[in-house]
Amino acid sequence: MQTMEDLFYTVMQDVYYAEKQLLKTLKKMGKKANNGKLQTAFNTHLQETEGHVERLEEAFQMLDKRARAKKCDAILGIVAEGDEVMKEAENDDVLDAGLVATAQAAEHYEIARYGTLVAWAKQIGKPQIARLLHQTLEEEKKADALLTRIAESQVNPAAQSA
Amino acid sequence: MQTMEDLFYTVMQDVYYAEKQLLKTLKKMGKKANNGKLQTAFNTHLQETEGHVERLEEAFQMLDKRARAKKCDAILGIVAEGDEVMKEAENDDVLDAGLVATAQAAEHYEIARYGTLVAWAKQIGKPQIARLLHQTLEEEKKADALLTRIAESQVNPAAQSA
Repeated sequence: MQTMEDLFYTVMQDVYYAEKQLLKTLKKMGKKANNGKLQTAFNTHLQETEGHVERLEEAFQMLDKRARAKKCDAILGIVAEGDEVMKEAENDDVLDAGLVATAQAAEHYEIARYGTLVAWAKQIGKPQIARLLHQTLEEEKKADALLTRIAESQVNPAAQSA
Repeated sequence: MQTMEDLFYTVMQDVYYAEKQLLKTLKKMGKKANNGKLQTAFNTHLQETEGHVERLEEAFQMLDKRARAKKCDAILGIVAEGDEVMKEAENDDVLDAGLVATAQAAEHYEIARYGTLVAWAKQIGKPQIARLLHQTLEEEKKADALLTRIAESQVNPAAQSA
């Protein structure tokens, strides 16, 4: 990797892989979740994630590069930890709590990566790509904040209406 | 895993592994970084990370459980991606940008995990552990924000003094 453009393209491929992996994972988690709000959150974010894949494909086009996915060990590790919880949880509350934790780890991975891509897109003179991916970044942050509210509402049901 | 306490203990072991792994990684990144501010940021966060390991050991004691590390595939994946950048980057700027990206992915993994642990500690009636790990959570967020400022200052040097 000689230039920032090379590095940018490499991380784009990593995130493209991660988003495609998350499509499968969110589908599975939406079916496994017991809490209705959690089911809805996963299914809504599944739809958003389809949009994130499309935005990345648009960004690849703007870069004049082929849309390629590059194996991302970090997201595979997060997903593997989630699979373990799904297999080992012996009751609904533990399962749901584990699913929220897994989803938040995945969201934060994406928040880090999109934050990086937005900063680099500006640096390499691609403000349109920066704006496009910034939209995804904001959606990832909102999805994470919603999961935090769901997690905290399990702690203190009185806070749910806040 | 039958109870939230079991799940909590499992994730504590995962984060304990991740923090110990990061001690090694931050040491290596501090030596590899070219930018002086980045070197300082890595070395400062290395010292903080030693404190995070100690806080986790304190939390294990409060739980009356043995401090154990459980292999964390997510952090190993993040570190592996960082190693690849260190190997493949052909100039200083690309290397530094890749190191910041890796460190931010690691920070966000920890932000997700500590956020989860703080919420769960409250839920299982361990407010002292929640307070203890909340201090670490805040330090992880500050470390991430500092890296964002460093990354953005590479984009726009005029913003460095802001």
